[in-house]
Amino acid sequence: MLNIAVVGLGLIGGSIAGALKKSNKYKVDGANRSRAPIEFAIENGLIDGEAKSLSDYDVVFVALPPEVTMRVLNDSAFADGAIVADICGIKGDILSCVRQKKRNYRYVGTHPMAGKEVSGVNNASPDLFRGANMVLTRDDETDEEAFEIMRELTRDMGFGRIVECDAAFHDKKIALTSQLAHIVSNAYVKSPEIENCLGFTGGSFQDMTRIAAVDECVWTELYMHNQKNLESELSLLIQNLQAYCDALRMNSPEKLALLLKEGREIKQKFDS
Amino acid sequence: MLNIAVVGLGLIGGSIAGALKKSNKYKVDGANRSRAPIEFAIENGLIDGEAKSLSDYDVVFVALPPEVTMRVLNDSAFADGAIVADICGIKGDILSCVRQKKRNYRYVGTHPMAGKEVSGVNNASPDLFRGANMVLTRDDETDEEAFEIMRELTRDMGFGRIVECDAAFHDKKIALTSQLAHIVSNAYVKSPEIENCLGFTGGSFQDMTRIAAVDECVWTELYMHNQKNLESELSLLIQNLQAYCDALRMNSPEKLALLLKEGREIKQKFDS
Repeated sequence: MLNIAVVGLGLIGGSIAGALKKSNKYKVDGANRSRAPIEFAIENGLIDGEAKSLSDYDVVFVALPPEVTMRVLNDSAFADGAIVADICGIKGDILSCVRQKKRNYRYVGTHPMAGKEVSGVNNASPDLFRGANMVLTRDDETDEEAFEIMRELTRDMGFGRIVECDAAFHDKKIALTSQLAHIVSNAYVKSPEIENCLGFTGGSFQDMTRIAAVDECVWTELYMHNQKNLESELSLLIQNLQAYCDALRMNSPEKLALLLKEGREIKQKFDS
Repeated sequence: MLNIAVVGLGLIGGSIAGALKKSNKYKVDGANRSRAPIEFAIENGLIDGEAKSLSDYDVVFVALPPEVTMRVLNDSAFADGAIVADICGIKGDILSCVRQKKRNYRYVGTHPMAGKEVSGVNNASPDLFRGANMVLTRDDETDEEAFEIMRELTRDMGFGRIVECDAAFHDKKIALTSQLAHIVSNAYVKSPEIENCLGFTGGSFQDMTRIAAVDECVWTELYMHNQKNLESELSLLIQNLQAYCDALRMNSPEKLALLLKEGREIKQKFDS
C-alpha cells in the first residue's frame, strides 16, 4: 500500500486527500502550516493522520500556490525515488525549478481542472474531481513508472478525462481556458450598472460572474508565471470585443451579425 | 377563465404557454407562422389548441423577436381592452412603438430572465421559469388592472422574483446583465487556442462559453435596439480589461493584484 502525503490542506489538497482515501487503496496523510485544517481533515475522514516528515512517503502531492510550491520542491527532504507532484495552474516555471538541479525524487506535474468559487479545506470533497479533466505534464526526463503511477492515482481520484502534454502546451491552453476566464469575470462586475441589478439577472449573468471573486494573491502569482501567454490571450479578446463595439458605433447590423455568426460557428464546431 | 393566446411558439413562447396551462387556471392557445410547432405544442400539452384570431383573447403574449413583435403590435386586431404583452429583451423601442398611437388594447412589457443555449418549442418546458427573475415594465399610461393581472400570470408561471421598472431602466440594466454577457461569450471562443483544448477545460471555461452560440439574427436585432447602452457597457468592459493587460505588460504584480482585489470586493458586496 502506497504511503501518500498531501502538503497544503485547502480546497484542492483536501479533495485530493479525501478522494485517494475514499478509494481505500492508500494510506493518506496531510501536512499544513496551520493546525486547524489538519484536525478538520482528520475529523472529516479526508486524511488518516498528520504527515510529520515528507521523507516518509512514496508519493507527495504539493497542493500549494506556485511560489511556495517551488520552495517545497527545492527545500524539502523527500525519500529517494519518491514521486512528487505539484497541482499548480502553471507548469513551465515549476518544471524549470525542478529541473535546475538533479533531484532524488521523481517529479510529475498535475493540474486538476476542477475548483469551486470558494476555498479552504471545509469546502473540500472526495467527489470534487468526479468526471473532471486532469492534465498531467511530462518532459524528456519524466520517469515512466512514476508517470504511470500518477495516472493510476488520478483515475482513483475520479477524474473523467486525463490528458498529457508538455508544460509549455499546458500553459498556452490554460491561459485561455482558465486564466482569462477569471480576469473577464473579475472585470465584468466593475460596471456601475451592477448596483441594483438584482432581478435583472439570468443564467448568463450568473455564469459570467460566478468566478469573479478570485483570491488576488494566488491568481496574481499564477498570472505572473504565465504572463506572455495570458497577455496574448487578453489582447486578442480585447481586439475581438472592440470589433463588436465598432460595429455598434458604426450602426452596422450587418457587421454585428457577421461577428456573432463567426462566434456561433466556432462554438458549434467546438461542441460537435 | 381567461382566454390566453401565445403568438410565436419557440423556446420562450412554448414555455409561457406550457407554464400557464400547467396552472390549470387558463385556456391557452398558440399561434405560429409554421404549422409544426403548433402540432408539437398540442401533442406535448403546452397549448389547448390553435389560436386562429387574436381578437378572441383576453390576454395575448407576443413571444417573438423585436421587429416582428412590433409588426404584430401594430397590425394585429386585438379585442377591445385585451391585455397584450411582449417578451422582448429590449423595452424602450417596443414601448415607443406601442405609444405612437392610441391602442384599443392594454400593453404591458415583460422580460422573462430565463433561457437556454438552445431554442425551439421542442426545448420548451412548463418549468423553464421556476425560480427565475421576471421584469415587468410600465409607464404613466400603463393600465393598473392589466398590470396586476400580468403580475398574477407571471406568478402562475413560476417566476421567483418579479421586479417592475420603466423601459429605460430595464434597457440599461439588461445591457450589462444579459446583452454584454452574450457578446463576451461569443468573442471568447475566437481564440485560436480553442483548437484542441478539450481536456484543458473546467467549469470556468464552460460557464464563459455556454452562451457563445447566439442566434445572430435575434441578437443583432436586440443589440441594435439597445445600441447606446450596450456600446457604453462594452466600451467600459474593454477599458477595464485593458487595465489588466497593461499590468501584465508592465510586469506589475502589485497593479494586477489591486485590479483583482477591486473585482473581488465588488463581487462579494454583490453576493452579500
